[in-house]
Amino acid sequence: MKAVLDHIGIAVDDLDAALAFYTGALGLEVDATEDVPSQGVRAHFVRVGSAALELLEATSEESPIRRFVSRRGAGIHHITLRVDDIEAALARLRERGVRLVDETPRRGAEGALVAFVHPSSAHGVLVELKQERIEQTRHAR
Amino acid sequence: MKAVLDHIGIAVDDLDAALAFYTGALGLEVDATEDVPSQGVRAHFVRVGSAALELLEATSEESPIRRFVSRRGAGIHHITLRVDDIEAALARLRERGVRLVDETPRRGAEGALVAFVHPSSAHGVLVELKQERIEQTRHAR
Repeated sequence: MKAVLDHIGIAVDDLDAALAFYTGALGLEVDATEDVPSQGVRAHFVRVGSAALELLEATSEESPIRRFVSRRGAGIHHITLRVDDIEAALARLRERGVRLVDETPRRGAEGALVAFVHPSSAHGVLVELKQERIEQTRHAR
Repeated sequence: MKAVLDHIGIAVDDLDAALAFYTGALGLEVDATEDVPSQGVRAHFVRVGSAALELLEATSEESPIRRFVSRRGAGIHHITLRVDDIEAALARLRERGVRLVDETPRRGAEGALVAFVHPSSAHGVLVELKQERIEQTRHAR
């Protein structure tokens, strides 16, 4: 299976201050901004080569990002690997007894399919798998 | 400043088991293996596109990786950003009041220059800056 690092999700408690560090002090550039009220987060993507840092701030009390920051403080929340075939990747993981958060893929941003692997099977790392929208994938071939 | 994600350092307590997950279950490929007795770690680099995952296991009791895993369990330890001019990057960070672990760069693997930014200034993330060996950089131009 080929997998490419798509982004690193970083949970922060003050998105504007985090942005000031990553763009102002480190001099990186903002690539995209997302507001996802249904998941209680807003985010800025900051480009670092072919991958990105996703700076995530909770906008609701029930957001998993709020719970993460309350429990452990700001820090790296997840890494996202882009795969060509997420169903095949999940089947392969299940076969090997890997614990999954999502048994079947869910819709993510921009029509992508996403699924999380449980950190207990991934040596403490919350790994998200992502397959880009099929139309885009076909287009790129 | 242009910065490119070089790798994500993941502290694990069992390198062989971690490797079984990342290569066996996820199907990724090992790129390089390092044994650094002076820092009390051994590591495998697993390729994810143009970046890598560095799976780090402590080989001595005094290793910072051992302390990290004892305190928080296995998980993401640091991210490394590759910059063209590490002295200029550190000067820029200092100017903006960013707290540094290394005020001046140290020698890393393969003659690289490296320096850590303190997580308290980087929203909970341990950020390593890295400038590749100058001879290589000149060669690449």
